[in-house]
Amino acid sequence: MSKPLNVTQKLIKSHLVEGEMVPGEEIGLKIDQTLTQDATGTMVMLELEAMELDEAKTELSCQYVDHNLIQSDFKNPDDHVFLKSAAERFGMWFSRPGNGVSHPIETERFAIPGKTLAGSDSHTPASGCMGMLAIGSGGLDVAFAIAGEPLFIKMPKVLGVELKGELKDWVSAKDVVLEMLRRYDVDGASGYVIEYFGEGLKNLDTMDRHVIANMGTEMGATTTVFPADGEIRRFMESQKRGDEYVELLADEGAEYDKYEELILDDVEPLIALPSSPGNVVPVREVEGRDIYQSYIGSSANPGYRDFWISSEIVKGKTVNDNVSFDINPTSRQIIENMVKNDVMFNLVQSGARIHQAGCNGCIGMGQAPATGQNSLRTVPRNFPDRSGTPEDSVFLVSPETAAASALTGKITDPRDLEKLFNMEYPKYTPLKEVIVNTDMLTPPKPKEERGEIKKGPNISSMPNFGELEDFEVPVLLKMGDDISTDEILRAGTEVLPFRSNIPEISKFTLDVVDKNFHDRAMKAKEEHGGHVVIAGENYAQGSSREHAAIAPRYLGQRAVIAKSYARIGWQNLVNFGIPPFEFTSEEDYNDIDQGDVLKVENIRASIESGNTAKLVNVTKGTEYEVKHTLSDRQRQAVLDGGVINSFKKKKAS
Amino acid sequence: MSKPLNVTQKLIKSHLVEGEMVPGEEIGLKIDQTLTQDATGTMVMLELEAMELDEAKTELSCQYVDHNLIQSDFKNPDDHVFLKSAAERFGMWFSRPGNGVSHPIETERFAIPGKTLAGSDSHTPASGCMGMLAIGSGGLDVAFAIAGEPLFIKMPKVLGVELKGELKDWVSAKDVVLEMLRRYDVDGASGYVIEYFGEGLKNLDTMDRHVIANMGTEMGATTTVFPADGEIRRFMESQKRGDEYVELLADEGAEYDKYEELILDDVEPLIALPSSPGNVVPVREVEGRDIYQSYIGSSANPGYRDFWISSEIVKGKTVNDNVSFDINPTSRQIIENMVKNDVMFNLVQSGARIHQAGCNGCIGMGQAPATGQNSLRTVPRNFPDRSGTPEDSVFLVSPETAAASALTGKITDPRDLEKLFNMEYPKYTPLKEVIVNTDMLTPPKPKEERGEIKKGPNISSMPNFGELEDFEVPVLLKMGDDISTDEILRAGTEVLPFRSNIPEISKFTLDVVDKNFHDRAMKAKEEHGGHVVIAGENYAQGSSREHAAIAPRYLGQRAVIAKSYARIGWQNLVNFGIPPFEFTSEEDYNDIDQGDVLKVENIRASIESGNTAKLVNVTKGTEYEVKHTLSDRQRQAVLDGGVINSFKKKKAS
Repeated sequence: MSKPLNVTQKLIKSHLVEGEMVPGEEIGLKIDQTLTQDATGTMVMLELEAMELDEAKTELSCQYVDHNLIQSDFKNPDDHVFLKSAAERFGMWFSRPGNGVSHPIETERFAIPGKTLAGSDSHTPASGCMGMLAIGSGGLDVAFAIAGEPLFIKMPKVLGVELKGELKDWVSAKDVVLEMLRRYDVDGASGYVIEYFGEGLKNLDTMDRHVIANMGTEMGATTTVFPADGEIRRFMESQKRGDEYVELLADEGAEYDKYEELILDDVEPLIALPSSPGNVVPVREVEGRDIYQSYIGSSANPGYRDFWISSEIVKGKTVNDNVSFDINPTSRQIIENMVKNDVMFNLVQSGARIHQAGCNGCIGMGQAPATGQNSLRTVPRNFPDRSGTPEDSVFLVSPETAAASALTGKITDPRDLEKLFNMEYPKYTPLKEVIVNTDMLTPPKPKEERGEIKKGPNISSMPNFGELEDFEVPVLLKMGDDISTDEILRAGTEVLPFRSNIPEISKFTLDVVDKNFHDRAMKAKEEHGGHVVIAGENYAQGSSREHAAIAPRYLGQRAVIAKSYARIGWQNLVNFGIPPFEFTSEEDYNDIDQGDVLKVENIRASIESGNTAKLVNVTKGTEYEVKHTLSDRQRQAVLDGGVINSFKKKKAS
Repeated sequence: MSKPLNVTQKLIKSHLVEGEMVPGEEIGLKIDQTLTQDATGTMVMLELEAMELDEAKTELSCQYVDHNLIQSDFKNPDDHVFLKSAAERFGMWFSRPGNGVSHPIETERFAIPGKTLAGSDSHTPASGCMGMLAIGSGGLDVAFAIAGEPLFIKMPKVLGVELKGELKDWVSAKDVVLEMLRRYDVDGASGYVIEYFGEGLKNLDTMDRHVIANMGTEMGATTTVFPADGEIRRFMESQKRGDEYVELLADEGAEYDKYEELILDDVEPLIALPSSPGNVVPVREVEGRDIYQSYIGSSANPGYRDFWISSEIVKGKTVNDNVSFDINPTSRQIIENMVKNDVMFNLVQSGARIHQAGCNGCIGMGQAPATGQNSLRTVPRNFPDRSGTPEDSVFLVSPETAAASALTGKITDPRDLEKLFNMEYPKYTPLKEVIVNTDMLTPPKPKEERGEIKKGPNISSMPNFGELEDFEVPVLLKMGDDISTDEILRAGTEVLPFRSNIPEISKFTLDVVDKNFHDRAMKAKEEHGGHVVIAGENYAQGSSREHAAIAPRYLGQRAVIAKSYARIGWQNLVNFGIPPFEFTSEEDYNDIDQGDVLKVENIRASIESGNTAKLVNVTKGTEYEVKHTLSDRQRQAVLDGGVINSFKKKKAS
């Protein structure tokens, strides 16, 4: 008899196409479904175009539009038109603008127990609530998954969390995951999949589990997994997808790399203080502070129940004069159910501002709080300034706490509603008849009906990059330690609108470090055929944005030579064909000056066969040994000029 | 027996406090109610603060928040907090963010036949639908009205429009006002009040009349007036305000300065082509063009009926795949009625994106169309780029035409729905039971409960300006003809967020003409105590924004000497204490060079007693005669350093 497996192991085992299931080792997984949203999806579509993909090779791929819904000028609506045309071109589903947030729609409409999902959004794990292995990844990883390539991750360990007992009145799923964050903080689950099990599960319905799976990301988990049990069957049947249900339970006696017990009865209303999801304390500890905003919605509290309980709490009352009560319905389908069941009416009558279905303020697209004012939100994150307001003061709470506080105008433990308003805890029972509406989810078209990709003036194609070649080019910039991707290519409202336009966005390359970098790089490209840069330790740390590799490459960057690299930044350089060399001696870094002309002797052979290369300083007449740590797959990518070229070569052969 | 009067004349006569009712002459009107919105209201509140106003002297003043609802950072929410605190401080009503668009709320909740309304919004005339004299004005004019001062306007002529017959199926009030625009274009009613009368009125309900009154502004009319008849009584009763109804009809035999006949039966579905509300043609002439967007809402089609008819048209169907169907509910009260009566459900189910109640895309705050795509909107204006998209293509239509086109994806005459969908025209009957909800309209507080004004970091006070004094300062800029207020102080997203911050916004003064103007002005202020500017013909044309006078004054502008002025720009200079001199000879303009130091001999006496002054060019040693055309009231304002100072002096005495 083989070893009993937990749900995570079963999911991985059934999708393993490369590597061994040894924690920490790289494994390749077959991906069944993909999810892309508009903020990351435009780049994915340009990558698929550059890969000359014929059509998506997954069982199901859906392109959502939920992040950039504010159409202040042509850029966002042009992206919507582009994404719709690209989804059609590649035979993908398209969720139209205003149809709602990707994660709950994926859960309601597409998620299937036992399948894998790769999504270019960090909250993709939400669909793990349904016995799915749902992993958030970089855009190019998802592009490759769409093209039928494996998704490569490090084999995770499994943290088993046993749920016992039942939640008390006024406490809900959000408090459960906040309790986990209280214990694990923002990196305590790094390298792990969190798998929930135990008898307490029967008291958490599918969308409660979605809340918990969604915010596993905040603990640094690879993903979160729940079993697919009878509750999942009930949920899928209510969504008219009962036929797609597959049971998926851990084997009797399955083991976990780490074990945690969580007694639901002991959980009380919790709150994450500014400005980290890990700053969790009981609501009691901070009650009484004035609030400016009570915000309900987002992928962290997306279910009908969350809006229903909020509406039951405010029904027949009026929110406090000083409170902006912002309701962000998750999807059109949920709006319909809210409208049909008086949830919408009760919320509006109490004073709610109803926003269109989407991510909205959760990702800083509107609904920023006023200066120096407290905002209570049911969203997953309260990182500094994410709301859009400098030095913001955002607290993460359950819908119960948000609604109670909206009424009083102060941070309020919802249990106090019993005495404040003589209110009993409204007991939720799932809707008997759920309205299902898929009209705004456009299915893939038959091949013969697929049109061309439509690009507005701000959308360019991925540039074509050539194979690796010898160079003799100047050091355009010599940088110190800890240069982040925010310095290589900053974010912000001035830059991000050009996310689909490499020639334009490349103008901001490294301008934080040297505002003439772009012009100097263009000159070096013309005169010398490119440039290199020198850096200290931990180069390209921070945000995973791929543009920090693509834009320098577009400007003619032939190599980076650094003391060391941050993991994702390093991988992005490889993916886009910039060889990342490392110094073998501190002195060599010191010997090179900005402006020196460098070349690598016989660069293709050095990459192909060894792990070292000879770097020649033509200006100074000196030589240095540099090294690299590329895997075989990565050697080939660098030689080809990037993984997209490798993919095209492989496809052609 | 006295001469029979029309409704307009009755309204003016009963509120005349200065001047004679002779067309073209300046008259002063007592103002009963005021309306301010957030885009203009922040300045009004700062002006009231600078005037040291104790409390509003009107019967009713309401501060709305409907324009700047997108909270991308702290500035808009800080403005909301500021406006709420200022409304409270001055004893005004406050309509909270998300409560809806000012004009229909004013009509539903506050408008009273026979009263006057001054509003710092050009669509204020909408409430003329209820037998009210409702006039849109500049911010400072409304600030003075709030302070109990008369509103000064030129006595208008009256254009009497006699309505006959009844509208055909699929034709509605929007088509009526588009027919007027077809006849009068965008300036044909300039100098007139448009007064509607006749037996056809009985077929137009109050909100239909609101549609027509609202867009009278687009013809350049001073305002639009309807009688207060039985329909107005019915409407006010449905709004639970029947006790405030007063009949107001034209006298038998009343005359009009101009007469127009409009036969309702002859009106067909009309459309205003890009990019002017005056470009009106039958829908038939342009049918079949693909559309990207169908937009319903705004002050131009704000009534429950407009959403109801749209929902009836799309009920049980799905809008075309390529259409963004944007629904902008007018107010929370209308959302509640929409929700209770399945209007909301039918719209959402058909694919609508439901936005929060407010002006939104109508004033370019979101919902911009994609590049090169057609947008059909029920809004009042389609000026170039107003949507936010360069070279936009916006058409103005009725809700019937917008909804029909949303279904087909092409510009569609709604009469075609009969054959396309076998649909009968849905016959509207007003709701028997209107839900009235005023919870988000905060009434004035008792004096003892009023708090302090709250200002975020981006909100400054109005600077104090001194009395008129002699100067000897350099010509900082010599400009040509037709310098617009957009050149003096441009609009746009970089500048407008500083509308409540004179020190900050002044940094953009004249930077279109000379990007160092601000720095040079600050230097001249320090070294010489200020500066003057020289201009050609038609100085300060264009937008009425007061900042184009306040900011230069803040930078030390002591006078403008120009060949001639645009009317509103000239008035703003006077209001803020900058004497606007005119050359009497073309040669004098030519003689002065940028950098020359100028002084006016005995400037106070020149302003006080005569209409000319002696301008001395200290640099060149020459002298010129310049003139001004100030009224007595304006002389005093310039001497005092602006009308706010005059008001304070008057109050103190």
